[in-house]
Amino acid sequence: MKAQKVDMFVVPMATPSDTTGLQKLAESGKIKPDTLVALVGKTEGTGQHDDWGRVWADVALREWTAKFVGIPVGEVAQRVIFVLSGGCPGVITPHIAAVTREVVDVSDPGEEKRLVVGRAGSEPMAPEDVGRMGQIRKVAEATKRAMKDAGLTEPGDVHLVMVKVPGLTVATIRDAESRGQTVVSHDLTFGPEGAGSYANDAAALGVALALGEVKESALSDSVVRRDWDLYSEVAMTSSGGEKRHGEVVVFGNAAGSQSALQIGHAVTRDFIDAEGVRKALRSAGLHFNGGLPDDNDMAQRLVHVFAKSVIPGSDQIRGNRITLLDDTDAYQIGKALGGMLIASVTGRTTNYVSGGERNSHQGPPGGNIIAAVARV
Amino acid sequence: MKAQKVDMFVVPMATPSDTTGLQKLAESGKIKPDTLVALVGKTEGTGQHDDWGRVWADVALREWTAKFVGIPVGEVAQRVIFVLSGGCPGVITPHIAAVTREVVDVSDPGEEKRLVVGRAGSEPMAPEDVGRMGQIRKVAEATKRAMKDAGLTEPGDVHLVMVKVPGLTVATIRDAESRGQTVVSHDLTFGPEGAGSYANDAAALGVALALGEVKESALSDSVVRRDWDLYSEVAMTSSGGEKRHGEVVVFGNAAGSQSALQIGHAVTRDFIDAEGVRKALRSAGLHFNGGLPDDNDMAQRLVHVFAKSVIPGSDQIRGNRITLLDDTDAYQIGKALGGMLIASVTGRTTNYVSGGERNSHQGPPGGNIIAAVARV
Amino acid sequence: MKAQKVDMFVVPMATPSDTTGLQKLAESGKIKPDTLVALVGKTEGTGQHDDWGRVWADVALREWTAKFVGIPVGEVAQRVIFVLSGGCPGVITPHIAAVTREVVDVSDPGEEKRLVVGRAGSEPMAPEDVGRMGQIRKVAEATKRAMKDAGLTEPGDVHLVMVKVPGLTVATIRDAESRGQTVVSHDLTFGPEGAGSYANDAAALGVALALGEVKESALSDSVVRRDWDLYSEVAMTSSGGEKRHGEVVVFGNAAGSQSALQIGHAVTRDFIDAEGVRKALRSAGLHFNGGLPDDNDMAQRLVHVFAKSVIPGSDQIRGNRITLLDDTDAYQIGKALGGMLIASVTGRTTNYVSGGERNSHQGPPGGNIIAAVARV
Amino acid sequence: MKAQKVDMFVVPMATPSDTTGLQKLAESGKIKPDTLVALVGKTEGTGQHDDWGRVWADVALREWTAKFVGIPVGEVAQRVIFVLSGGCPGVITPHIAAVTREVVDVSDPGEEKRLVVGRAGSEPMAPEDVGRMGQIRKVAEATKRAMKDAGLTEPGDVHLVMVKVPGLTVATIRDAESRGQTVVSHDLTFGPEGAGSYANDAAALGVALALGEVKESALSDSVVRRDWDLYSEVAMTSSGGEKRHGEVVVFGNAAGSQSALQIGHAVTRDFIDAEGVRKALRSAGLHFNGGLPDDNDMAQRLVHVFAKSVIPGSDQIRGNRITLLDDTDAYQIGKALGGMLIASVTGRTTNYVSGGERNSHQGPPGGNIIAAVARV
Repeated sequence: MKAQKVDMFVVPMATPSDTTGLQKLAESGKIKPDTLVALVGKTEGTGQHDDWGRVWADVALREWTAKFVGIPVGEVAQRVIFVLSGGCPGVITPHIAAVTREVVDVSDPGEEKRLVVGRAGSEPMAPEDVGRMGQIRKVAEATKRAMKDAGLTEPGDVHLVMVKVPGLTVATIRDAESRGQTVVSHDLTFGPEGAGSYANDAAALGVALALGEVKESALSDSVVRRDWDLYSEVAMTSSGGEKRHGEVVVFGNAAGSQSALQIGHAVTRDFIDAEGVRKALRSAGLHFNGGLPDDNDMAQRLVHVFAKSVIPGSDQIRGNRITLLDDTDAYQIGKALGGMLIASVTGRTTNYVSGGERNSHQGPPGGNIIAAVARV
Repeated sequence: MKAQKVDMFVVPMATPSDTTGLQKLAESGKIKPDTLVALVGKTEGTGQHDDWGRVWADVALREWTAKFVGIPVGEVAQRVIFVLSGGCPGVITPHIAAVTREVVDVSDPGEEKRLVVGRAGSEPMAPEDVGRMGQIRKVAEATKRAMKDAGLTEPGDVHLVMVKVPGLTVATIRDAESRGQTVVSHDLTFGPEGAGSYANDAAALGVALALGEVKESALSDSVVRRDWDLYSEVAMTSSGGEKRHGEVVVFGNAAGSQSALQIGHAVTRDFIDAEGVRKALRSAGLHFNGGLPDDNDMAQRLVHVFAKSVIPGSDQIRGNRITLLDDTDAYQIGKALGGMLIASVTGRTTNYVSGGERNSHQGPPGGNIIAAVARV
Repeated sequence: MKAQKVDMFVVPMATPSDTTGLQKLAESGKIKPDTLVALVGKTEGTGQHDDWGRVWADVALREWTAKFVGIPVGEVAQRVIFVLSGGCPGVITPHIAAVTREVVDVSDPGEEKRLVVGRAGSEPMAPEDVGRMGQIRKVAEATKRAMKDAGLTEPGDVHLVMVKVPGLTVATIRDAESRGQTVVSHDLTFGPEGAGSYANDAAALGVALALGEVKESALSDSVVRRDWDLYSEVAMTSSGGEKRHGEVVVFGNAAGSQSALQIGHAVTRDFIDAEGVRKALRSAGLHFNGGLPDDNDMAQRLVHVFAKSVIPGSDQIRGNRITLLDDTDAYQIGKALGGMLIASVTGRTTNYVSGGERNSHQGPPGGNIIAAVARV
Repeated sequence: MKAQKVDMFVVPMATPSDTTGLQKLAESGKIKPDTLVALVGKTEGTGQHDDWGRVWADVALREWTAKFVGIPVGEVAQRVIFVLSGGCPGVITPHIAAVTREVVDVSDPGEEKRLVVGRAGSEPMAPEDVGRMGQIRKVAEATKRAMKDAGLTEPGDVHLVMVKVPGLTVATIRDAESRGQTVVSHDLTFGPEGAGSYANDAAALGVALALGEVKESALSDSVVRRDWDLYSEVAMTSSGGEKRHGEVVVFGNAAGSQSALQIGHAVTRDFIDAEGVRKALRSAGLHFNGGLPDDNDMAQRLVHVFAKSVIPGSDQIRGNRITLLDDTDAYQIGKALGGMLIASVTGRTTNYVSGGERNSHQGPPGGNIIAAVARV
């Protein structure tokens, strides 16, 4: 009988184009040309429109991967999914997590649920789909296929869904309007009414729809970025104008998996909720002493943490006012604060933390999603 | 027999000029014209040179205090010490802590050590003193007098020393140089070689000298901002060009005090050390369940936390690189991260957190000072 | 026969609350309690949501004006119009321009067209009006009444219309939606789809409608921030959530005016068009030598320049790409660049320059409005 | 008889790694492997420590040049000098200027002075030299050799000297101090007391010494960044910690040169002095109509402008206060304003404008250096 065996390796990057960590993984045999399925990382740079660190990292990593796998650069995207989140303000170490997957033969797979991963591309998304039901449905459909690819049938076994979808650009808006279509926004930013935010949030609702977190009857174009009670607890999404299809990577635990890893997740109840981070660690099977995670477990068993740090839409935290919504560099500060919340619990800085935007259907109002991967 | 009775009340501010919280304290009788000794707060605004929020708050609070106490605005400084730290990026609620002190007659003061506060002004500091031994010695001398004013004799009973000293300005540099004197820096900022940083750090070393944390023989002009092994664990200092004298406020615990409060402190070992924050809470007498502070204690007994968030001089945290030193808005992010570290432990956002500058003799290399005040 | 006599005095401000320049004008008799009609100025501070410099200036100037005029602070708004634009990045000197108007008896008013000023308040604007035809029509109507107040009948004699209108707030959005109404945006910023931008632009189209620059038949809700070929060449608008009515101040030249001043205007063709600035100076009657304004005229006759510095919506200037749209501090840089464009032509830094937002119906696509006031 | 023939081609860059403009120059034969001597450009990105745009551009341009010239990347530095200035805020188009030089045989070289270029590397500079007389003297010596390489004997014929020198790093400071040497600063930034500023300014004084703009007797370690009356009118300098030698490129006009170009320069008297820019254009031989440069000349004969935009050390411009020194993003704004000053005169955005730092020996106090290259 066939079973997945998934592994994950985290290496720091000294510069945006630093592939020495990956090269060592390759030379040690930990990652192989035919097992590498995803590179998920944080790249240093501004994390904003002018973030050449992320662009350079993308170019350098694709070139390295092409050589490693032995294919042209243009074909890398079909083989390895890239999720690069720009901006490491504060205490977020630039790093890359390499995810490998192999299919092994097993006679007695066992009942323990262990890490699996699945991927799927979506149907093409037209500009008029972006931030609307069209995008929601196509992400939902791709999420289901990615679950199938992962061998996951129960939504409750899904702990992290990373999605990349098309956003809008000047060109795609022009295209849509020339065909008599409207678009969700003319604001190309990730601001409150920005197309980037609408795309991210439609993608999150698509995951929520696929997993049954939200009913289809509750969804319509008009709830996107309006009804914050609709959300996914496991979707981390991003969008870029240059894409035409969505990409979905699902992480979960499945019986029979031969992985030495398992994944868990939780959501924070608000922006300062360290206990939410600890819940995610517990969910991944890490032991606790009293209220705190066991030091040895943290040092030896914790593989990686993935977290969002979306800025709350309210200026109140537990009854007191904060000024974050008015901070001129709120985007950077919001992301950095997420990095601190995670690092102060995990005791390490190589955490994947993306965010900075305001409000989201990724996680509950004011709270954020945290997923953790641990060795069994 | 005479004894101090000190209290502390924290009220949020809705705008830089909001005195409604203080007014309510006044109307409720919690603070009185003859007991108010200090106002210590965080004001919203940029926290940088162009921080008009802090300036406006200072004007508004002095006007309110003058009316409250019944004296001209120009005399407020002799009666009430103001420590206003500008900038509330992230999760730091703009707030003011009012400190009251009265002297009460007691027949049996008891042996319990409780909160006391003492104040002293320093000798005038010439521009050529700034950031050098002259400033160190004058702060040390004033610290000793403030300890005496507080009724504190043991350095180990001192848990927080807030100091304000003169920095340098274009005018005072000109004055010094016209008299044939040199100054420590022509950089008026709080950058690595800025006069503001030198002044802050000389003040910290002055406290360290007074408390015996550093020997006088180890001190010289050349160690300031060079030998980071010399530091105070309780000094929080600030400097401004407009001042001519230093001001010192000492908080500690003394036997016989009739206060219902006690103070404790600790230092973090690095920038992500939440355990250091918890140590400060333990030091203030708060109870813990397992590794975490007791929720009821936190809600009912914790009065206030004072913390520094100085950016580490190294780009490494626990062996991994961070980019904070190169972040263009490191000053804001560094301060905000301190706010998150405290808030994620205390579960509240009304914490006094100042910082953002790089390296300091306030606390050990890479670590920061945390003081906590709790009801007994 | 009655005629207007208008004067304008520009004084620098040393801090946001500095009223010494105004006080000197008062003591010299240049401004009088019954002639002061408007204070228009640039205040230092961030110019963004957290701009406490502007708020403090507003408070301080209203308090000063109340004392000067001899009325309660709450009545100042009925007597003197305040237009304070926050943010003086670069080479914009913080300053205030005091505008006075008196009505004098003249036997032979003459035919020369000289400066007049008129004011009007609009009908109340509901939240659902903001950024839509409701706001456009109410501004247009108020503009016509302000023209009448100024004694202006020809649109061609109007050279500057400053308008302040209500924007949206969390509270007013809630109010509108509770009544079953929609609002133009949930984004409260001045971003591309922000309610602030919609309000500013509806106000500009209102002026354009009143002056015949745009036909009513060309206007609808859907053209606001969409059809950039519709614009005013003389409208400088701002919006704030706290207001309920619009306020309009019209400046123009009218025959019979006894003012010693005249006003002119022009628009720049793109963001680097210094010639557009020079055209405005010519329009105000200043003499030129060759292609440059006469130095003596500039020193002795130029009273003030009012300019917008809206960032172009395109990333191209004269065929070459610029990165301004992606600059993370584009708002500050965009405003600062306008300040330089004006200052490099006028040779002085006390220019009123507001802007930083992207795209606008204030001026043609890519260009900006410049008005100049000169002594005859 | 041998004579230089120098040419210069400016191409915009669409991204930091865009070499398509250079490739077209190569394919058209305008630049050849054996004539290319320098690439001088502005790269998009933050222009600060985290400027990955500049780093990426450097890597991409060196790789392209290596292929073009047919040498290993490691040898490119010996053949082609790179001067890449990071940061294009506002209206500065990212671009690269390719400088070619060939030696041609001429029988009658003529008396007209035309563009020549010369290069030289300096002696190695130890960390203890940085920002001090050691660096000044080594730059002066290299400048003289570069003049010789250019065939320039008269300092008055030198119009632009671009210099790159070593700055300080954590490692080189440690090295110096381990040998018992001191360094000029422990601040590694380009702030007022930063090592980067000291290095830049020592380099500028080195040029001034070589050209006789400053007497050797007036120079000492203690005048660097102190005596602003000592300066060069033609030095544009930069520094980086990674270098060990200085590099100097001299541009001037020499009789006999067969170039179709000539260079001129001027200095602005203050930060808003557009006339200073026009003087540089006149100096390069461009014609003027009245006070303004002739449009045809600007379109057809102006090849390139090189300018510094150092922020003035004073908060006064022509008697009025500006807030630039306190603007939190003064570095970006200062550079952007220089870009506007030049673009508003030249009518184009492809200008080389570096700066943002405060005070400098590059140009007179408050003023900046502008050099212009024009076709004859």
